[in-house]
Amino acid sequence: MPEIKFMPDDRIIQVEIGTSLLTAAAQAEIFIKSGCGGKGTCGACKVVVLNGEPQVIGTGNLTPEQLAKGVRLACQTIVQGDLTIEVPPESRLQEHQVLLGDSQKGLLRESEHDLLEKFGHHPLATKQRIVLSAPTLTENTNDWARLHMELRRVLKAGDKPIHIPLSVLQHLPEILRKANWDVSVTLTDLESGFMVTNVEAGNDNPLFGLAIDIGTTTVVVYLIELSSGQIVDQQGSYNKQARYGDDVISRIVFAVENAENLQEIRQAVLETINDLLDKLLSRHSNSPKDIASAVVAGNTTMTQLFLGVDPKYIRLEPYIPTMSTVPFVTARDAGMHMLPEALVHCYPSVASYVGGDIVAGTLVTDLANEEDITLFIDIGTNGEIVLGNQDWLVSCACSAGPSFEGGGITFGMRAMPGAIERVVIDPDTLDVSLKVIGKCLPVGICGSGLVDCVAKLLIVGIIDRAGNFQLGHSSGSERLRATADDKEFVLAWAHQAGGKKDVVITENDVKNIIRAKGAVYAGIRSLLNMVAVDIEMISRIVIAGGFGNYLNVHDSIQIGLLPDLEPERFEFIGNSSVKGARLALLSQAAWREAEELGRKMTYVELSVGATFMDEYVSALFLPHTDLSLFPSCH
Amino acid sequence: MPEIKFMPDDRIIQVEIGTSLLTAAAQAEIFIKSGCGGKGTCGACKVVVLNGEPQVIGTGNLTPEQLAKGVRLACQTIVQGDLTIEVPPESRLQEHQVLLGDSQKGLLRESEHDLLEKFGHHPLATKQRIVLSAPTLTENTNDWARLHMELRRVLKAGDKPIHIPLSVLQHLPEILRKANWDVSVTLTDLESGFMVTNVEAGNDNPLFGLAIDIGTTTVVVYLIELSSGQIVDQQGSYNKQARYGDDVISRIVFAVENAENLQEIRQAVLETINDLLDKLLSRHSNSPKDIASAVVAGNTTMTQLFLGVDPKYIRLEPYIPTMSTVPFVTARDAGMHMLPEALVHCYPSVASYVGGDIVAGTLVTDLANEEDITLFIDIGTNGEIVLGNQDWLVSCACSAGPSFEGGGITFGMRAMPGAIERVVIDPDTLDVSLKVIGKCLPVGICGSGLVDCVAKLLIVGIIDRAGNFQLGHSSGSERLRATADDKEFVLAWAHQAGGKKDVVITENDVKNIIRAKGAVYAGIRSLLNMVAVDIEMISRIVIAGGFGNYLNVHDSIQIGLLPDLEPERFEFIGNSSVKGARLALLSQAAWREAEELGRKMTYVELSVGATFMDEYVSALFLPHTDLSLFPSCH
Repeated sequence: MPEIKFMPDDRIIQVEIGTSLLTAAAQAEIFIKSGCGGKGTCGACKVVVLNGEPQVIGTGNLTPEQLAKGVRLACQTIVQGDLTIEVPPESRLQEHQVLLGDSQKGLLRESEHDLLEKFGHHPLATKQRIVLSAPTLTENTNDWARLHMELRRVLKAGDKPIHIPLSVLQHLPEILRKANWDVSVTLTDLESGFMVTNVEAGNDNPLFGLAIDIGTTTVVVYLIELSSGQIVDQQGSYNKQARYGDDVISRIVFAVENAENLQEIRQAVLETINDLLDKLLSRHSNSPKDIASAVVAGNTTMTQLFLGVDPKYIRLEPYIPTMSTVPFVTARDAGMHMLPEALVHCYPSVASYVGGDIVAGTLVTDLANEEDITLFIDIGTNGEIVLGNQDWLVSCACSAGPSFEGGGITFGMRAMPGAIERVVIDPDTLDVSLKVIGKCLPVGICGSGLVDCVAKLLIVGIIDRAGNFQLGHSSGSERLRATADDKEFVLAWAHQAGGKKDVVITENDVKNIIRAKGAVYAGIRSLLNMVAVDIEMISRIVIAGGFGNYLNVHDSIQIGLLPDLEPERFEFIGNSSVKGARLALLSQAAWREAEELGRKMTYVELSVGATFMDEYVSALFLPHTDLSLFPSCH
Repeated sequence: MPEIKFMPDDRIIQVEIGTSLLTAAAQAEIFIKSGCGGKGTCGACKVVVLNGEPQVIGTGNLTPEQLAKGVRLACQTIVQGDLTIEVPPESRLQEHQVLLGDSQKGLLRESEHDLLEKFGHHPLATKQRIVLSAPTLTENTNDWARLHMELRRVLKAGDKPIHIPLSVLQHLPEILRKANWDVSVTLTDLESGFMVTNVEAGNDNPLFGLAIDIGTTTVVVYLIELSSGQIVDQQGSYNKQARYGDDVISRIVFAVENAENLQEIRQAVLETINDLLDKLLSRHSNSPKDIASAVVAGNTTMTQLFLGVDPKYIRLEPYIPTMSTVPFVTARDAGMHMLPEALVHCYPSVASYVGGDIVAGTLVTDLANEEDITLFIDIGTNGEIVLGNQDWLVSCACSAGPSFEGGGITFGMRAMPGAIERVVIDPDTLDVSLKVIGKCLPVGICGSGLVDCVAKLLIVGIIDRAGNFQLGHSSGSERLRATADDKEFVLAWAHQAGGKKDVVITENDVKNIIRAKGAVYAGIRSLLNMVAVDIEMISRIVIAGGFGNYLNVHDSIQIGLLPDLEPERFEFIGNSSVKGARLALLSQAAWREAEELGRKMTYVELSVGATFMDEYVSALFLPHTDLSLFPSCH
């Protein structure tokens, strides 16, 4: 097989002839951006062919100069023989972009700890030491009945059935006798009964579980010691499905092409999880057999792809997912490197665009157990919104587009070193001072920086309330200028940015941000209208998501992204999806509530009726058409 | 790979170098006797090498003359290259030895039909036609919830959960839409909930199930149309495990040698079943997907080997089986050519030597629902005995040895053409007239013939009550004679038998039969003593098993095999194991009762205490030491 060498990593792998460089790179664990999912249209996957003669099936928008320099689109370049390839930094997804949430090794954070106390620490999987009397000719009960009776006594199982799978039964006689009738039994406690997942020689070794957040972009796995609740370690990486496209839609488009594609994209996320898992296992000298339980939270598409469930109709009107509650699957059937009969619990989804990650977050907010009304928002490409209290629960999803994650913005980027996160503009001179992540030279601007920037542009009068640039600004600053087809404001001059281009924000960028924030705010308003709740009645707004974590509440209110309420009512919760997975892993009651939440949350389809569109149009101003909604912005 | 040609079948197969001829023959579907399970000791697997040079690793008791003629033991002869092999008739298991039980195509026999009426015809698997409304933006319930709600209504499921396995869920969205929301759902009704096993486009095609009897010697599969209860067809063959030995002990010895052996012997019975199934399917143009349910009945060893459950401790004191109730396994996990998610129900066993076949038989006798006491006996290599009524149920097993199946008897053979089944002896001249199965020349004597023969030998005074031959019989017949190491009676002269040897019964044969009948009778007596039931209190004796089917009650009482009761109290039930499988397949209630029987039947280990040995010694006379037990034999 041909050898492909990736530079400057100096990593060499062998791939089949006919493999695209995009796929080859992923196999080499070098992650290349691929916004369009390998269609050759987005131009994000540029690489340089240093040596060798690949087949080029498309060049997209590459210029003759680029082509002359050996630049190719990785997705359109096919291996025919040995190659040496350079992957420039701008084409790479960066490892440090992977946000691991905010929990560090050690005990759960206080709030999570409190929740666990409340639900009760009773993990989904437990281990019981069982010592049996040996059978005799007169006391000749069969092996499983002997074990079953003692288990029933120890578990105080009452009428609840205790099941044993065939694969465990097959080796039971030898295990019982080799262990001299002193065994450790691993069980999962399901509502429908206990399930024995392992029987081994009696020991007091700890039992582990996994809390897994399958994000569209990143996957995070936590290794947790079940009886103490201790987080042993965590590991995160890009979702290997990225090579099929950045967003769920491109992934679905790929997956539904044929049965092989669905298997391929399913395997990609399984590989991602298993690689993370293997790293955790080897780092802590654990065997897959020590891992007795897993809870997975992900959006509806991620969950269906993880399970190999046809995702086709998620993206076709009327947007119907296949299931809410997910049947328990064994690690063996799921394809995970764990105890084969261990159960993998997937968080239920509510609708095609309100998934298990949101149900997990809702559980962590504990809003369904409070008298007061809470608004829970997860802001990313989609804004998912949940509103409710102990009596009722509604949810919706609105498409904010990729702007908050840096997509569709001239200098947009994710929150990583080089990203502008805060902007200060002198109202007279329009001079700018910036706060850049990693304290390095500014390369671009991330979501929270964009929110801040738009708020500041408005305050100093560079833009009006509709987002139109005011070229006649009294300062006469050179930073405010017109280009051939747009207007822009220079945040950093090329020489300050260490690049060849000035870092700017354009009128078009601002309009994109306005549309994004308008969609989220319109979603909130629509949901409030639906249940006739006034903004003031919301006692708590909980914001989740990597982007949300860094959001400035004041700026967000100024541009009309978030409702105009006192800052004390806002809380940030970080990666609530993985928090929910951890909680359910450690608490039967939490898992039962998660299932209940999945069933009882009402989903409101915003595309039905005129409410959302009316709200959206009204929200396309800064902060809003109706200024009475934003009293603090006068 | 070397080619092996089997003659006179003229069948050619390719096998790996190193394969034994015994295995090669089985692969060619030529079944060679192998009493010792391939150890080279029984000498039953003689073949003639006509061409080629195999490796010979043992010659057992073959004479130099036989060796000179190319005779070899198939189990001790290893393929090194191309061979031509003759398999003589006497080395073959004969196809017509396979007894299929007594049910013919068409409706169940009256008695079974009555039982089905009583339990209620409600098959384990059913198919429901479900027509759903299509989802809309406002009525956006997910696919499974939509189907689930309608199923719950149609099934009147109440609180009973309805489960769907992942593999069905994976394709659900496309199936629902391609079928335009009109689908047929196949379900299995379990105590713990309904299990969806298939969803397909709406149709009214019939659904089928399998009733399977896994005997140590033969396997029988019935194809049954579930909604009508009609037996569509049946197919039987030798259990391919025969190449690992005739009896359960040799099979266990082979299976426990290593993990590969257990898999190999498991595959052998799976192949047997799947071959039978494939024949039934192709004969009736069915697809494996039409087969939605299976019920399997077999003895404890056969059940554990079918499921790949380690059988080691079945044969080691204190003889503990792995389980009684068998977890439901999917056809996929069981390895059967059926609907992959269809459930395979195995009859529960009671003890290592009272298995699912006996529980099935007990169900068919309906003894646990009657006030009067019934004795149920299955006579074969083991005699399994069940005694009880609606209030109590005890069982035991006694080793009768192979005599009743022709084993260990000089001219013993199974009930097949050429077997003597009735003997008439002139009390004065000792002249003999015989009834031979198939009305052909006598080749040997089968179990029912042996019972009859011993009774007649006693009546005419050739043997005394201890089974000793009376050489000084008044007739002075040449038929009664001493040999070098035994005494014998000639049943057929060589010229009458068309062979080179006289067909005889020896004193040793008679003693073997006495030991066999003594064991069965002692088992019956021990069980009666245990529960303080007098023989006269037994209102019904039900006899099962292929051998039992042809048994003459009068003869059996004369030799003391069966209790001395009026002939009207005896019933013959044939292959009660497969009857029980059919019944459970067609009736939920019957299956529940089968599970209940498995739990409530008490097993008595006869090797504990002196009772059985005392009874056994007393039973080593014809009919018994205590003649008061056999008033009709005076």
